[in-house]
Amino acid sequence: MTKIVIDAMGGDFAPQQQVQGAIDALNADKNLYLILVGDEAQITRELSGKKYDESRLEIVHTTEVISMEEIPTKAVKTKKDSSLVVAFRLLKEGKADGLVSSGSTGAVLTAGVLILGRLKGVSRPALCPIIPNHRGENTFLCDCGANVECKPVNLLHFAVMASAYAEAVYGVKNPKVGLLNNGTEEHKGLALQQETNALLANTPCVNYVGNVEGRDLMFGDIDVMVADGFTGNIAMKSVEGCGKLVSTVLKKEYKRNLWTKICALLSGSVIKNFKNALDYEGKGGAMFLGLSKAVVKGHGNSKAYAFSVCIKQAAEAVRGDMVGKMKTMIDETNDEIAKTSANTENGEE
Amino acid sequence: MTKIVIDAMGGDFAPQQQVQGAIDALNADKNLYLILVGDEAQITRELSGKKYDESRLEIVHTTEVISMEEIPTKAVKTKKDSSLVVAFRLLKEGKADGLVSSGSTGAVLTAGVLILGRLKGVSRPALCPIIPNHRGENTFLCDCGANVECKPVNLLHFAVMASAYAEAVYGVKNPKVGLLNNGTEEHKGLALQQETNALLANTPCVNYVGNVEGRDLMFGDIDVMVADGFTGNIAMKSVEGCGKLVSTVLKKEYKRNLWTKICALLSGSVIKNFKNALDYEGKGGAMFLGLSKAVVKGHGNSKAYAFSVCIKQAAEAVRGDMVGKMKTMIDETNDEIAKTSANTENGEE
Repeated sequence: MTKIVIDAMGGDFAPQQQVQGAIDALNADKNLYLILVGDEAQITRELSGKKYDESRLEIVHTTEVISMEEIPTKAVKTKKDSSLVVAFRLLKEGKADGLVSSGSTGAVLTAGVLILGRLKGVSRPALCPIIPNHRGENTFLCDCGANVECKPVNLLHFAVMASAYAEAVYGVKNPKVGLLNNGTEEHKGLALQQETNALLANTPCVNYVGNVEGRDLMFGDIDVMVADGFTGNIAMKSVEGCGKLVSTVLKKEYKRNLWTKICALLSGSVIKNFKNALDYEGKGGAMFLGLSKAVVKGHGNSKAYAFSVCIKQAAEAVRGDMVGKMKTMIDETNDEIAKTSANTENGEE
Repeated sequence: MTKIVIDAMGGDFAPQQQVQGAIDALNADKNLYLILVGDEAQITRELSGKKYDESRLEIVHTTEVISMEEIPTKAVKTKKDSSLVVAFRLLKEGKADGLVSSGSTGAVLTAGVLILGRLKGVSRPALCPIIPNHRGENTFLCDCGANVECKPVNLLHFAVMASAYAEAVYGVKNPKVGLLNNGTEEHKGLALQQETNALLANTPCVNYVGNVEGRDLMFGDIDVMVADGFTGNIAMKSVEGCGKLVSTVLKKEYKRNLWTKICALLSGSVIKNFKNALDYEGKGGAMFLGLSKAVVKGHGNSKAYAFSVCIKQAAEAVRGDMVGKMKTMIDETNDEIAKTSANTENGEE
């Protein structure tokens, strides 16, 4: 049985959509056990009348909620009985193997590091969302905002962690890694990109293909895109805006008049496949990589479907031993770094 | 008569598409005079049999071409008889009021600064492409790649220059300016964004609305998005990749079978309007702001239509006195900066 703990109170439509998502995930997967953390009365109300296997669902009552507006570090430290803090505590204590929250990103990041703790050897945990690409596959973008200021070694770890994630959970063999830059030539970028490019090229355990550009996020030939959190955030939100524009314009155009409405009906399969190809929600949440267990951060505006995908994602990460594989790769990487710097110090290079 | 000088040899499809674009622009505008710079034999061949007013077109023969692969500074300094260098020299000498090239970006940037020269008071010239947005209007993104490393004062100048451009050429009244950042809160970003945010907020001649995010490039409520060249490049190319994915998937889906092909025919107007709403080419090239005259850099893969739009854009910049208005605004800004720093030194602030 895979046990996932759910922050039932985090998100714009919590707990209603979170509870519904949990039920959907539970009904789709007989080997899933869920712990819903939050206000018991509200959760019970959302559960009432719904069909699900009660023996695989448990509620842990909490009295507080961390809102999107609160200062993350302060909220995590003071709201000891918030759904998020209690969920992370249960995870830490081994009551569950993975966690899902669609609450405040800052609070999830803070609680992840302060309560659960980092995976040994990882310098900086990072957020890794999945972006659909033109091959009908996934681009794993890491980091998308957890670490605004980074050093080259942080980005190397992002590359390793996202590769382990892609391999363990999605079966991507030897994922191709690109560094997000303003051009493909070696000299491109600021000092951070130039140094990271050299470091990635000299780390055998990463399948590094070189610098890539913003367009390669959705239209490239890579599996993993590595970036500092600032740059990754710009890329992710830029394509998000483009996607929103596309869906807004398409909706507007198909609703223009009776004829276009008929066309929309006739083109149903085209529109459906088109939507699927760009489907953000269906890709799940951002995996918070570099912690000692699997943590998925769902979008704040997640509805039941998106949230159920996040739960599935967390369960698959547990089953694929994502963290174990990541640990092996991180150790290998750190050994390589230590060897290189020892060689450099001894004047062998 | 508005005189524009054309680098006829720059671009993936030069001189064929450049010459055709020039003819189209000439035929659409009776007050336009064009100087085509490049290999006379090739240009004449492209012109032959075409209908246009010969009295408004002139050819200046050159023997060299700067390719996309060459090192810009070296190429501009050594290839004295290249179409790009000669075009810039004619512009500098007053033979034309504006210039259009779809050649190597680096070479255009170098020639712009070295041959034509900066507008007095501008710290760093910058590239400003136009991105379509969800309001059916334009977002002016400045800088998109001319300056990888920037100081806050450079970004302030980008804001002023792009505002002057939007107002002079597109009639945008008091353009709303946002700073591209990884969140809207004041403390967001690296030191550069934090300091620039404070500087923009304290410069009355810029209509600054605050930090904005990547999604606001296409889905926001701003006219001008300011960024350092690295970050702006990431945003621009990210939405470019998304746009490419969208058009690829839509094409593929509509071509899937006979039924979807019929749907495509029936949905003609929807698809057309949809394409128009995302039309990159129709927006023209990137204006190279901060030089003493109007310079438009077209996309390297420009076909005749896109190139003719670039020519129109350059002509409109001349007619709208873009550079004059920019000069007034830059002087005003620099006065404000000088006043503020004098006050600060005198302990008044």
